Amino acid sequence: MLKGIHHVGIAVADLDESIELYRSSLGAELVHRALNEKDGLEAAFLRTGDGEVELMSATRPDSPVGKFLAKRGPGLHHVAYGVDDIGKALTLARAAGLELIDLEPRMGMHGALIAFVHPKSLGGVLTEFVET
Amino acid sequence: MLKGIHHVGIAVADLDESIELYRSSLGAELVHRALNEKDGLEAAFLRTGDGEVELMSATRPDSPVGKFLAKRGPGLHHVAYGVDDIGKALTLARAAGLELIDLEPRMGMHGALIAFVHPKSLGGVLTEFVET
Repeated sequence: MLKGIHHVGIAVADLDESIELYRSSLGAELVHRALNEKDGLEAAFLRTGDGEVELMSATRPDSPVGKFLAKRGPGLHHVAYGVDDIGKALTLARAAGLELIDLEPRMGMHGALIAFVHPKSLGGVLTEFVET
Repeated sequence: MLKGIHHVGIAVADLDESIELYRSSLGAELVHRALNEKDGLEAAFLRTGDGEVELMSATRPDSPVGKFLAKRGPGLHHVAYGVDDIGKALTLARAAGLELIDLEPRMGMHGALIAFVHPKSLGGVLTEFVET
């Protein structure tokens, strides 16, 4: 069902500094940057070989990433797996007893259908599916 | 320099339950299981398409994973990137100012050379290189 690890999401305190750190120390290349006012999120997508890193910063402290940073500090936020058919992945996950955050796929920040599974269903790991 | 995301490491409370959860809900397949008495760690490596998930449980509370679980609870523990030449990756990382946990590559639990970068160098993210 899963095609591999599509990306990891990382909550960061300062987006520009983090992009530069990943570029200079790991050779990661910025491919896309986007602001999501609704979710209080600014994100940068960096290419690392055939994987991606999503650096996520909060535009306000009461946003989901703002609350994550206040509670846990900067660090790993979620893991995203690529899937061929996200509708099927959600159906199978639900049938297996996972609690979905997104009951239906929605458009993500870089133009692919995504959906999140609640971390309490998967041992504290916020898990995302990305249709690729 | 990076070839992609080789695996994510996930700290779990119960290894058997977690293996079964990843199998039944995400179709992940157990490929290897190993005990590392020195580090107080039992780990299971599961295949998810062309990526891997490393589920990590503590064999004693004062081990690194035991302390992680006590402090943060189960959840994402580290991200590992595949590299062609781990010696070169470490040299470049060090030159860029990253603090290395492993100054030299060492043999990992599934027979590949690995090395860890300190999370304080990379915004709270424990980061591993795996030579593939």
